[in-house]
Amino acid sequence: MSIQSINTRNQFRGRVKEIIEGPVVSEVDVETPHGIVTSVITTRSVRDLQLKVGSEVVALVKSTEVSIAKL
Amino acid sequence: MSIQSINTRNQFRGRVKEIIEGPVVSEVDVETPHGIVTSVITTRSVRDLQLKVGSEVVALVKSTEVSIAKL
Amino acid sequence: MSIQSINTRNQFRGRVKEIIEGPVVSEVDVETPHGIVTSVITTRSVRDLQLKVGSEVVALVKSTEVSIAKL
Amino acid sequence: MSIQSINTRNQFRGRVKEIIEGPVVSEVDVETPHGIVTSVITTRSVRDLQLKVGSEVVALVKSTEVSIAKL
Amino acid sequence: MSIQSINTRNQFRGRVKEIIEGPVVSEVDVETPHGIVTSVITTRSVRDLQLKVGSEVVALVKSTEVSIAKL
Amino acid sequence: MSIQSINTRNQFRGRVKEIIEGPVVSEVDVETPHGIVTSVITTRSVRDLQLKVGSEVVALVKSTEVSIAKL
Repeated sequence: MSIQSINTRNQFRGRVKEIIEGPVVSEVDVETPHGIVTSVITTRSVRDLQLKVGSEVVALVKSTEVSIAKL
Repeated sequence: MSIQSINTRNQFRGRVKEIIEGPVVSEVDVETPHGIVTSVITTRSVRDLQLKVGSEVVALVKSTEVSIAKL
Repeated sequence: MSIQSINTRNQFRGRVKEIIEGPVVSEVDVETPHGIVTSVITTRSVRDLQLKVGSEVVALVKSTEVSIAKL
Repeated sequence: MSIQSINTRNQFRGRVKEIIEGPVVSEVDVETPHGIVTSVITTRSVRDLQLKVGSEVVALVKSTEVSIAKL
Repeated sequence: MSIQSINTRNQFRGRVKEIIEGPVVSEVDVETPHGIVTSVITTRSVRDLQLKVGSEVVALVKSTEVSIAKL
Repeated sequence: MSIQSINTRNQFRGRVKEIIEGPVVSEVDVETPHGIVTSVITTRSVRDLQLKVGSEVVALVKSTEVSIAKL
């Protein structure tokens, strides 16, 4: 299934820099032009997507999940 | 209350570019080096934080909220 | 940008049955074989995706967002 | 405490098909009439709820957690 | 459907103190021993659950949604 | 970076009572005056924040993550 467009407004393109694999979930660190974006997904998904260091990915975040803090 | 540090690994500093205010929730668009990061928070929080166009903020995302897609 | 695959394990294909549009967020009800799946996304995304009644879509849910209750 | 009704609109009834237990979180796969729904919850909750393969459960998802993609 | 138990470890019992109703989502403020707990749910759910000021409710939060900040 | 204020309306102050550390994520149980609040965050954050039993913390929850159930 190829998805044409998705509503998640916040999309960060980059390459996988590191994967810390656990029995259930894994941490996937994505290197983007403006810093590391960290994701925790199921280890099963890491395998299904065949993610490895260097894979080109997009990190996606739903707008309702973004908090705002004032400096 | 001043917070020294927070666990959300994904922090995007920037300035508020636009606020679309609704009766319950508002969309806050933050201009960051990554591009626009969009957040939906309560309108009450927009007022409590006295957010307006130009405010310096950090958009925060918990790692468990970040999905990964392969290109 | 066309996405090849995404890690969100829970994907519910269906057609948009109803859209309730608000100033900031909208409710999108998707008719799937599981029954109606309800999503709240930004109204901006509804427009960007040009969603309307009858659009073919996939509702996506990250596994970490799924709770379990016992009957 | 018995709960009469809950606001999460998206409820998927089924039976636990598989549990992958980790030290902190576990993956619980629920077989529903229309496919597998995957959940990640704390391992402590798996024990508190005494979940095992075959348990009758409901997988619950808050509408604000559902993303929409267009095919 | 009566639910016997749910995995969300964080349960805050209280009474609805205020409801701010919007066209799509509503803010429901619950008075609990912890102070006010604020929830944003669909307006449709507010009606389905027949919530009003004074209703006895439980506010539920999945552990993966809780962030930690250091003072 | 010191944060002056954050939009998450639901803030529970307390002390860390227990940490269950996993390879990727850890459970952090916070004792508040009105009961335990449980959080699952990355183990990397537990280390970055130097959390240990007794640390003074605030557990934070975004309003859109709070569900409501009726008793």
